Amino acid sequence: MYKVGIIMGSDSDWEVVKKAVEVLKEFGVEYEVKVASAHRTPDKALNFARSALEKGFGVIIAAAGMAAHLPGVLAAVTTLPVIGIPIKASLEGIDSLLAIAQMPPGVPVATVGINAAKNAGLLAVQILSLSDESLAQKLYAYKEKLALEVEEKEQKLLAKLS
Amino acid sequence: MYKVGIIMGSDSDWEVVKKAVEVLKEFGVEYEVKVASAHRTPDKALNFARSALEKGFGVIIAAAGMAAHLPGVLAAVTTLPVIGIPIKASLEGIDSLLAIAQMPPGVPVATVGINAAKNAGLLAVQILSLSDESLAQKLYAYKEKLALEVEEKEQKLLAKLS
Amino acid sequence: MYKVGIIMGSDSDWEVVKKAVEVLKEFGVEYEVKVASAHRTPDKALNFARSALEKGFGVIIAAAGMAAHLPGVLAAVTTLPVIGIPIKASLEGIDSLLAIAQMPPGVPVATVGINAAKNAGLLAVQILSLSDESLAQKLYAYKEKLALEVEEKEQKLLAKLS
Amino acid sequence: MYKVGIIMGSDSDWEVVKKAVEVLKEFGVEYEVKVASAHRTPDKALNFARSALEKGFGVIIAAAGMAAHLPGVLAAVTTLPVIGIPIKASLEGIDSLLAIAQMPPGVPVATVGINAAKNAGLLAVQILSLSDESLAQKLYAYKEKLALEVEEKEQKLLAKLS
Amino acid sequence: MYKVGIIMGSDSDWEVVKKAVEVLKEFGVEYEVKVASAHRTPDKALNFARSALEKGFGVIIAAAGMAAHLPGVLAAVTTLPVIGIPIKASLEGIDSLLAIAQMPPGVPVATVGINAAKNAGLLAVQILSLSDESLAQKLYAYKEKLALEVEEKEQKLLAKLS
Amino acid sequence: MYKVGIIMGSDSDWEVVKKAVEVLKEFGVEYEVKVASAHRTPDKALNFARSALEKGFGVIIAAAGMAAHLPGVLAAVTTLPVIGIPIKASLEGIDSLLAIAQMPPGVPVATVGINAAKNAGLLAVQILSLSDESLAQKLYAYKEKLALEVEEKEQKLLAKLS
Amino acid sequence: MYKVGIIMGSDSDWEVVKKAVEVLKEFGVEYEVKVASAHRTPDKALNFARSALEKGFGVIIAAAGMAAHLPGVLAAVTTLPVIGIPIKASLEGIDSLLAIAQMPPGVPVATVGINAAKNAGLLAVQILSLSDESLAQKLYAYKEKLALEVEEKEQKLLAKLS
Amino acid sequence: MYKVGIIMGSDSDWEVVKKAVEVLKEFGVEYEVKVASAHRTPDKALNFARSALEKGFGVIIAAAGMAAHLPGVLAAVTTLPVIGIPIKASLEGIDSLLAIAQMPPGVPVATVGINAAKNAGLLAVQILSLSDESLAQKLYAYKEKLALEVEEKEQKLLAKLS
Repeated sequence: MYKVGIIMGSDSDWEVVKKAVEVLKEFGVEYEVKVASAHRTPDKALNFARSALEKGFGVIIAAAGMAAHLPGVLAAVTTLPVIGIPIKASLEGIDSLLAIAQMPPGVPVATVGINAAKNAGLLAVQILSLSDESLAQKLYAYKEKLALEVEEKEQKLLAKLS
Repeated sequence: MYKVGIIMGSDSDWEVVKKAVEVLKEFGVEYEVKVASAHRTPDKALNFARSALEKGFGVIIAAAGMAAHLPGVLAAVTTLPVIGIPIKASLEGIDSLLAIAQMPPGVPVATVGINAAKNAGLLAVQILSLSDESLAQKLYAYKEKLALEVEEKEQKLLAKLS
Repeated sequence: MYKVGIIMGSDSDWEVVKKAVEVLKEFGVEYEVKVASAHRTPDKALNFARSALEKGFGVIIAAAGMAAHLPGVLAAVTTLPVIGIPIKASLEGIDSLLAIAQMPPGVPVATVGINAAKNAGLLAVQILSLSDESLAQKLYAYKEKLALEVEEKEQKLLAKLS
Repeated sequence: MYKVGIIMGSDSDWEVVKKAVEVLKEFGVEYEVKVASAHRTPDKALNFARSALEKGFGVIIAAAGMAAHLPGVLAAVTTLPVIGIPIKASLEGIDSLLAIAQMPPGVPVATVGINAAKNAGLLAVQILSLSDESLAQKLYAYKEKLALEVEEKEQKLLAKLS
Repeated sequence: MYKVGIIMGSDSDWEVVKKAVEVLKEFGVEYEVKVASAHRTPDKALNFARSALEKGFGVIIAAAGMAAHLPGVLAAVTTLPVIGIPIKASLEGIDSLLAIAQMPPGVPVATVGINAAKNAGLLAVQILSLSDESLAQKLYAYKEKLALEVEEKEQKLLAKLS
Repeated sequence: MYKVGIIMGSDSDWEVVKKAVEVLKEFGVEYEVKVASAHRTPDKALNFARSALEKGFGVIIAAAGMAAHLPGVLAAVTTLPVIGIPIKASLEGIDSLLAIAQMPPGVPVATVGINAAKNAGLLAVQILSLSDESLAQKLYAYKEKLALEVEEKEQKLLAKLS
Repeated sequence: MYKVGIIMGSDSDWEVVKKAVEVLKEFGVEYEVKVASAHRTPDKALNFARSALEKGFGVIIAAAGMAAHLPGVLAAVTTLPVIGIPIKASLEGIDSLLAIAQMPPGVPVATVGINAAKNAGLLAVQILSLSDESLAQKLYAYKEKLALEVEEKEQKLLAKLS
Repeated sequence: MYKVGIIMGSDSDWEVVKKAVEVLKEFGVEYEVKVASAHRTPDKALNFARSALEKGFGVIIAAAGMAAHLPGVLAAVTTLPVIGIPIKASLEGIDSLLAIAQMPPGVPVATVGINAAKNAGLLAVQILSLSDESLAQKLYAYKEKLALEVEEKEQKLLAKLS
């Protein structure tokens, strides 16, 4: 099975990014974490992305804030799907959302919501589930768990109200 | 190989969405096109998404404008990766971008840029390339073609300037 | 008299939504509270809306944040007026406001301001007052109370200033 | 049955507002059209709203652009539900959307999307359907028609593609 | 000399508005403070504005937040200059700024910055200085004081740095 | 009576600014028009503002687009009220609106809406009316004319509809 | 004297960028034009920036639209000042402005306004003028020419008005 | 070697601006700090900029918030490159970013990100490095240090994770 590479522009992004890691652990997906910056260590970032496929990665998750170039720069040099997490570091995160989503024709980044690392992890699992049926099963179970949690929350709320 | 399902909320989105179809054709990926609305034909939309995996789809591309609920509503009932294209129909497209990207934890949508149907098609190919090595080869060739086009544009521009 | 159905996408919305409930209580309007998510429990949400009229509901109040699809998804399958409360969960609430207000032609949602649960409750009462004259009377009294409160606030402020 | 009052701040809004009128005609709902401005004819506007209930109106639809005060000013002096249509006259309509939706606690306006006069008309019909069962029937038929239109659009699109 | 009328939509605006009062006191300009809401006490607000000129007012300062209609509604019924203070109550104050500044042709409001009550007071003094030369003198002195304060701040900062 | 000084940063602003001039003519207020830029002719702009009061000006109207510094720079060196017109030259005019309205404490600019030159002219007349009773009379007549125009527009619209 | 490198992400940017070239020509500054994309030809872009200093470049001007990564990516690998021109290609250009200006600490880009290629050229000349006194002289002359143009525009406008 | 002039509109900006000073110290670049306001001490600000070149300054760094006119006003009267730091004082800093970046053709300001004083300092060093080779060497070393810091952060993070 493919591994997931998780790259963040700064270690300060970890508090957000770790939710992606938790999801991958929960689904038993192998991953590697890196700190690499499009602006401070561009070679490291590019080298990782260039060799990611041959090193067994199937998806790259990249998180960055402000003028968030990291996901797009990685996507420029790999054919793997790159998932971008816009980190909220300024302007409520709208700058990083636009800097990740508004890529030019030819080089897509699969953008999730602002600080939405959990969804980035889940999207990676969904992508990998196409070549690993057991993940698809776990994703169904996960959806059922989500629904159950909503039910439990309703029960708690109604108990509080009555 | 998996097929790609392409769903748009309105046939008026076709002028944008067709660029995704052109990419899929170029890469030889099978696809089906549907018009289904989260608000006008919710059952059709949900039924499509629920049965998409067993019908051989591997990725769903969904395009919608304004309060663009379609991609998120499909993502709610499938474990397949859903790619959302925000259509520019009002407010320069910022409303549809936010309505697609800002999904709650648990239900991701892989969002591309505003009207970026070409990138949606490419992202689908990238995802499918994980289980089809020939697509990975074609994606490398595509990247080389992109680079060549830039070179040609430069040559033309420099010729014009000199 | 019709009941009011109050649905929120997450129990964390309750701190905001409860102001709608307080208004309904104040006006003696019957209501039911539910937690249901357009993305995590879509069937529950849709089933509630589909059967709401026959179960005696006259208005649905739905609250959601971020890519706030819940009010629109409910409106898709009911002929009852649906009041949407945009919850401020990210981007100062502008994402949920747009995701609720910018519905496509054919499926309206009666949108109130960001976190404006009190106004959602009052709007429900106004709607029900068309078929219940006693509510109209109470609404007039409520307006007078609002005006009196402004007067009292002025008196307090002027006392403090003098 | 109640009538619907349709008020616009300027006759230049008519090209947008007429879609609300078309819906009311289609559903056989009686209506009256007025031009009244919160800023240029405040007394006329206020007098209309104050006497609207006793004159047989059940819902007021008010359209305005820019610093769109008309719907809120009417809502201040009536207990009837007021539906606000933000007209796109500047800043892509975001100014009028906010000026209509962001009402203070105690005085709600049921806001629809920017230029969404059709939805304003439908929302008025939905509200009136609570006291007129025949309208509820027509609304179901309308939803079915919407769904059929989507199907026809899909057929046309698929025919064009094949 | 004319008095200045200071009206706020809610007593909670006082913490901001009091800076306007402080300026008026500093310049020896007479003023009256009122709490009146465009939505909760529209008659009071309109009556004040209608009779303001004959009661000796020369300028009206009106503060409001969110869908801030108060300054515009007052301006509708007076020929006096109305100064609007957008209160920051939601969306960083951009909603109230737009709701006050974007008035339709024919009914201006002199808008100052978000929460800029001090500037509202100064603008009132500037307007009144046209018919009271002593105020013009005081305004020059005020400008010199502003400049001196900048100098003192620089001295303090440079002292800290050296 | 005081004159009104009308300054624009570029002659391309004239198409907008001329509406302010038309209002001043209509009310019989004397005015002078200048082209002066805060960035290209700062001395000219500052000199004008510094000597404006002694040259008989009572109000300065300044129009500028983009990073619209002109009104604020003039306000820095005069005690006269300065009315700022944000010109729509980029970003729908939101940049110039903010650059004019968001002045620091101590130096106000009376901001009107984007491209709202007519309102700038009217605001100047309102300010001058405090020291010229005939202008106050004309302003009342103007308000009545505005109301009549609304009535006429309504008549025309109703005639078209019936 | 140093040369100026002008790089644009797409030849479609030329219509904007050529104004920078015109300025450089006017001031007699040597320049080279390139088309290179951070996403389609990242190696070419990086190689250019890495060797720019030794090849005699003193300033790099980079233009890009949407998720405009080019200026930042170049700045990552050069110690030369990089001037970024945000191209208006979507969202009125606010996306490219933020993607260029909001760089992380350690890697600045000297950002000019949206589509402001002329200012990018002038800024390059200003920077080079520090090591070439003749450019400083020309810049003074340029400022005088700017002022004269304003005067001429005023004369023309006043002639038209009188 | 040229000095750098650092001007801020208010001493309250110092907490942000000091990061620019720290950079200049680190690189051994001489600097002077001033407090001068475009609105409260315009003459002081203009006089500084006018004589800056002859006093040995090579770059001016100017910081301001809200309607941030200071950098543009200085740029109007000097041929030196002016670096503008938008201070976050309201509206998340978007108002000052636009008021600094969106300068009219002919008068550029080199804008850095919101509160990005460190980058302003670095940009000044980059500009001065064109006429001082030792600075260029230090900038290379600085870039290497940045890269090393990223590596160290990665090591720390990985240690924490393992």
